[in-house]
Amino acid sequence: MDEYIERLKDGSLKLYALERELPPEEAVRVRRAFIEGETGTPLPAIGSFTIGIDRVVKRNIENMIGAVQVPVGVAGPLMVHGEYASGPYYIPLATTEGALVASVNRGCSLITRAGGADVRIMRDGMTRAPVFATRDIIHAKETADWVETHTAEIREAAESTTKHGEFLKATTYIAGTSVFVRLEFDTKDAMGMNMVTIASQKVGELIERETGARLVSLSGNMCTDKKPAAINLVQGRGKTVVAGVRLSETLIADLLKTDAETLLEVNYRKNLVGSARAASFGFNAQAANVVAGIFIACGQDAAHVVEGSTAITTVDRVEGGVYVSVSIPSLPVGTVGGGTGVETQHECLAMLGVAGGGDPPGANAKAFGEIVAAAVLAGELSLLGALAAQHLARAHQNLGRG
Amino acid sequence: MDEYIERLKDGSLKLYALERELPPEEAVRVRRAFIEGETGTPLPAIGSFTIGIDRVVKRNIENMIGAVQVPVGVAGPLMVHGEYASGPYYIPLATTEGALVASVNRGCSLITRAGGADVRIMRDGMTRAPVFATRDIIHAKETADWVETHTAEIREAAESTTKHGEFLKATTYIAGTSVFVRLEFDTKDAMGMNMVTIASQKVGELIERETGARLVSLSGNMCTDKKPAAINLVQGRGKTVVAGVRLSETLIADLLKTDAETLLEVNYRKNLVGSARAASFGFNAQAANVVAGIFIACGQDAAHVVEGSTAITTVDRVEGGVYVSVSIPSLPVGTVGGGTGVETQHECLAMLGVAGGGDPPGANAKAFGEIVAAAVLAGELSLLGALAAQHLARAHQNLGRG
Amino acid sequence: MDEYIERLKDGSLKLYALERELPPEEAVRVRRAFIEGETGTPLPAIGSFTIGIDRVVKRNIENMIGAVQVPVGVAGPLMVHGEYASGPYYIPLATTEGALVASVNRGCSLITRAGGADVRIMRDGMTRAPVFATRDIIHAKETADWVETHTAEIREAAESTTKHGEFLKATTYIAGTSVFVRLEFDTKDAMGMNMVTIASQKVGELIERETGARLVSLSGNMCTDKKPAAINLVQGRGKTVVAGVRLSETLIADLLKTDAETLLEVNYRKNLVGSARAASFGFNAQAANVVAGIFIACGQDAAHVVEGSTAITTVDRVEGGVYVSVSIPSLPVGTVGGGTGVETQHECLAMLGVAGGGDPPGANAKAFGEIVAAAVLAGELSLLGALAAQHLARAHQNLGRG
Amino acid sequence: MDEYIERLKDGSLKLYALERELPPEEAVRVRRAFIEGETGTPLPAIGSFTIGIDRVVKRNIENMIGAVQVPVGVAGPLMVHGEYASGPYYIPLATTEGALVASVNRGCSLITRAGGADVRIMRDGMTRAPVFATRDIIHAKETADWVETHTAEIREAAESTTKHGEFLKATTYIAGTSVFVRLEFDTKDAMGMNMVTIASQKVGELIERETGARLVSLSGNMCTDKKPAAINLVQGRGKTVVAGVRLSETLIADLLKTDAETLLEVNYRKNLVGSARAASFGFNAQAANVVAGIFIACGQDAAHVVEGSTAITTVDRVEGGVYVSVSIPSLPVGTVGGGTGVETQHECLAMLGVAGGGDPPGANAKAFGEIVAAAVLAGELSLLGALAAQHLARAHQNLGRG
Repeated sequence: MDEYIERLKDGSLKLYALERELPPEEAVRVRRAFIEGETGTPLPAIGSFTIGIDRVVKRNIENMIGAVQVPVGVAGPLMVHGEYASGPYYIPLATTEGALVASVNRGCSLITRAGGADVRIMRDGMTRAPVFATRDIIHAKETADWVETHTAEIREAAESTTKHGEFLKATTYIAGTSVFVRLEFDTKDAMGMNMVTIASQKVGELIERETGARLVSLSGNMCTDKKPAAINLVQGRGKTVVAGVRLSETLIADLLKTDAETLLEVNYRKNLVGSARAASFGFNAQAANVVAGIFIACGQDAAHVVEGSTAITTVDRVEGGVYVSVSIPSLPVGTVGGGTGVETQHECLAMLGVAGGGDPPGANAKAFGEIVAAAVLAGELSLLGALAAQHLARAHQNLGRG
Repeated sequence: MDEYIERLKDGSLKLYALERELPPEEAVRVRRAFIEGETGTPLPAIGSFTIGIDRVVKRNIENMIGAVQVPVGVAGPLMVHGEYASGPYYIPLATTEGALVASVNRGCSLITRAGGADVRIMRDGMTRAPVFATRDIIHAKETADWVETHTAEIREAAESTTKHGEFLKATTYIAGTSVFVRLEFDTKDAMGMNMVTIASQKVGELIERETGARLVSLSGNMCTDKKPAAINLVQGRGKTVVAGVRLSETLIADLLKTDAETLLEVNYRKNLVGSARAASFGFNAQAANVVAGIFIACGQDAAHVVEGSTAITTVDRVEGGVYVSVSIPSLPVGTVGGGTGVETQHECLAMLGVAGGGDPPGANAKAFGEIVAAAVLAGELSLLGALAAQHLARAHQNLGRG
Repeated sequence: MDEYIERLKDGSLKLYALERELPPEEAVRVRRAFIEGETGTPLPAIGSFTIGIDRVVKRNIENMIGAVQVPVGVAGPLMVHGEYASGPYYIPLATTEGALVASVNRGCSLITRAGGADVRIMRDGMTRAPVFATRDIIHAKETADWVETHTAEIREAAESTTKHGEFLKATTYIAGTSVFVRLEFDTKDAMGMNMVTIASQKVGELIERETGARLVSLSGNMCTDKKPAAINLVQGRGKTVVAGVRLSETLIADLLKTDAETLLEVNYRKNLVGSARAASFGFNAQAANVVAGIFIACGQDAAHVVEGSTAITTVDRVEGGVYVSVSIPSLPVGTVGGGTGVETQHECLAMLGVAGGGDPPGANAKAFGEIVAAAVLAGELSLLGALAAQHLARAHQNLGRG
Repeated sequence: MDEYIERLKDGSLKLYALERELPPEEAVRVRRAFIEGETGTPLPAIGSFTIGIDRVVKRNIENMIGAVQVPVGVAGPLMVHGEYASGPYYIPLATTEGALVASVNRGCSLITRAGGADVRIMRDGMTRAPVFATRDIIHAKETADWVETHTAEIREAAESTTKHGEFLKATTYIAGTSVFVRLEFDTKDAMGMNMVTIASQKVGELIERETGARLVSLSGNMCTDKKPAAINLVQGRGKTVVAGVRLSETLIADLLKTDAETLLEVNYRKNLVGSARAASFGFNAQAANVVAGIFIACGQDAAHVVEGSTAITTVDRVEGGVYVSVSIPSLPVGTVGGGTGVETQHECLAMLGVAGGGDPPGANAKAFGEIVAAAVLAGELSLLGALAAQHLARAHQNLGRG
């Protein structure tokens, strides 16, 4: 080991090149030892991992030194009535934020006691939007026109790069001499960013060749990936999912210790008016918490929590109670690829019955999306209820005082 | 074990109540076995964790069944010139997205070869904004006026709840009869949401008592926590950090295989014009990726990736090259509390020399914030460079073809 | 007259009912006299109007007391190369903001000297989006599904209400139990809000009848009319127009007293980075000024200045100079209906050769949209140039001082 | 006249130079004749104006050819209970959009019958934000630090340029190497953009001199003027005004032909949820219509309708009815300067009792701001009521049909 560390130190061996000379397990050990030395920090815990290193270094990580362990708790059972997911589920949440699992768990009880959450996927499509530079705005329009009149060629180019993905559409946007082509695909059980990026490269080259526009960047930020963007809120990206449940006054009183009126007011002043006043793109209480917990547990791309945070939570007054819903316009999820194959993450997906490819293709990712939305609804109900109960308690206290 | 599982099945024992009857380790094992049974899924990998269970079940998770392992890679060394962090750092990134660590690593090399990244914290303060209901808009104004003229009482109430936190200011916003009071604190080395929420409760009660306004919700979404919101972009929340580096044409050519002109164009058309056209709150390439990787490695609240995603990346033309910067208006980070004490996460913070409380208090969290910003800059440089190089390569190819 | 004023005073005659008893001219005179009395303010200037009162009280105003006079200046000639507008134009601007006409005029000179502005309309369609309430999210999805599979019926219902308008498409958006149906029409030479609203009423009733969803409001704010909204920025509403012009270094020096480099920097730091930092939906210098000036002159709906303000201005470096463009995603304009028939406004449209219905229908409104975009470009160039020149002057001065 | 027209045609005389050779009245006539010739369009109506030409060509317009006449109607009386405006007002609205005055008028009746609208100004300050370029992010921070520690010098520089304006504060924002300094002033009865721009020039030079930062543009778009921007929504610009009124069920039934429940639902689904789903910065029904009508009547800068459009309308359920409010975060208004001195516009301000400078200074502009907010509230009530009544009518009809 010392020899390698010496070479790492003197720069004759690069940190990332260790796997070229050593088997993965050795490489990781040497690298960790080197980092321990350089930083003067023993890393025994990071070194105590059990996930299969060969697969991981090939697909999921470079310069590996070990793993962090994120504790996993379960919330549930959560009764879900989707078109793909149906029945009771135990939701795995990986988090270090105390009280989150308990909060979601309470929401799950409430939903399940209420008969379950209805969930529907409204739209489904992963996007990538390369940007092209044109000579002038006339050339920009010609380029956009070409794209809009050559769907067949674009589909052919796009689908030549993938066995699984299905091209859905290409939409053009112009800002001066920049032409953005937003390509949308059904990526089945994969979250699909890789698939879509490779297809976009091919389409980009086609457009370049046919129009003379220069492909400046494979991503022109109208995709929009991992940045909060209204284009995703409005049009959707990944899955657009909506979940809802009806709660009776009795259930609200029993489980949330509050009442319909107070729940309505909290949602109105906080999630609607407060978010409006903050010029926010998220009109919810804690959607990101739930999305983050499930995403880390289930091997999703954690940076996509950004998209998940833009949910809208509504509370409608209905006879005898309220109808509460959450709408998530942009939820990128997958059950194959990415981190879904790492053993611990794979087990979390398996717990939900959605690990691997679905039958038909896409069914697992859709089921997973439905479960996530129902879990987000559980989180909303629980936090809104807690805020409302606190308010109600205080109101009573004040009355008592009076 | 079977007895407990029976009781869990028949509902006489609640899943979350296991720790009341069993030592944590046992409780977790029984719960996992129960979930395995209910879901028909063996969970050996999730059960193979080594983090100390006692601490974790007390502070970080409920209904624990085990842990997921997220592989950690290192990028670096990254030379940082901050006011709190200074020197070369190895950046731990926990991710399952292949190529991310390699990408950041390339950016680190570039920055380090360029002499290092300058970093500065522009503002620092964690916020919580309770919402109050008033009778009418006159009462709303009176309530806001009371808040703005009773800073001393508010400070006293707020600081009575915390040993570490320091009250900074209270700002009021009105929307009709709703009054939002955005309370801001210096939370030192803690990310601070808990501290701030507790203080807000106390302040909320004070305001209720003195003004007759009703505290409807401790969070009125003008905080804004874990939702993309312009109030945070504009005014900052957590740390507002800016990092920058100057790159010569030679370095750009050698390490990024592109040139200043192309780098400028990619940033212009993608990060600026593209984000504008998408009505985005993030004007960057992949800030969320880097923030997510470091946050999961270092025990931060992963839902705060939302805030981290709203960075602005700029590329200025300067003599002989470019000056590239990233500005992160809202970066909530901490080195104590939350997940920072879990062994693996603690090691990651220790690798950076920022584990635990700083001296003076707050110095570690500030140093950590600076390092994150420098790492985000590395990620931006690397991805912009890759996109630019691809464009340049294609341009050359086209020329060759012509 | 006194008799009527007495009755107005004692409430036995309503202010708006005067036209029922008196010819319009008389009614306006009595009403003005009444207001003069009530407010103690003589209103001779407001009373000195020459526009034809009969038409105006029927179509444009209620409770009329007279008219305000807004001074009109002309900027130009402005050379426009559109698909509908082609040739030199004198742009009428109604404004009381000193320096605005001069500023636009300078931009016109510059554009004309540069050979003219290219202009293209990228999309064209006026929208209205009624909102429906449904029982639950399943009913919401069923409602949306019905809409998306019954285009023919929707078109038929929509087009039954209009001789001129053409139905383009219906897009559905869901937020919980609320279903928004964004209906888009080609409204030819009319701005089209009235036409679209009437058609939406009919379509709304159809949807109600067929789906059982309740039509809560003919406008559900996803239209979005007269509020800044990302949906319009991204997808367009009214006309999406782009204008561009190439400027040589010589022209920049001669007419703007600055240079390409400085122009680039002003646009970069102000219009792009500054707008991003302010979380703005407008990335331009003064688009709203120009739109407001032309809209008031030409009898457009002045509240639509809101939509016009969301333009993106870009400055690209090109060989020997710069290419400057402005992209206006949402420009609602018309040459028939609304205020276009008032004599003074009609003359302004006539000056541009676009008064009344076009041949083919829609050609006049499209030509007008192109002219507006070119004029906005003139305003951008002039203000960017002025800011840049000032900066340059100061830079020189500082050098001189040094 | 022919001689001048010849010289205009051959280019030896510039259109804007006519006033140098001729008295204003003559110059305008010649210019109009020239435009009539060039465009082949007789302009008798535009030529039939009565406003005093000398003042107007000096202050309000260049290249004048005449005036457009915008019909003015009145809505009212509107009972206002503000801190500056108190009593019944007749609201002048200049518009060519039929039904607008009638709609506002109905809202005025409702408010007045309900006892009047309460109005309060929450904040007041006009802003300008120059942008500076710095060498690197360290220099950026130094520049910002200098500004924040030299308030006295900045105030002195700012106030040296104005007799009336009062410096309030300077706030700094950084994006990479760009430093934005948002300067805020109490501009008393003036809308204040000119005053603030001149002061910013002086402050900008001071900052340049003291910090070495380069003043790139007097406006860096964080002002933000005439673009929809979250910074204004959140922090306010011009006047932040809130108006509210309580409506009983009886009044709602009598005047709006609907009920509290329906009004609540329309506001909830349209103004709150619909605007959220559209990613809008305006949560209202028609604020821009009312603002535009009053602004044009009263000589305000019509491009500021953009700011006025970002209002939030709320409907709270209260015992026996509803409480409706409108909050306008950013309302730039003035009663001196700009178009306020043109005769017809001046009369409109006089009708409201707010023409010219107030006593104390600022009182007239504040009163005007309060009146505008109350009128916007009237417009909201009327349109929400109409939408609700239509919904209710349809609901009844459907019941009848069933």
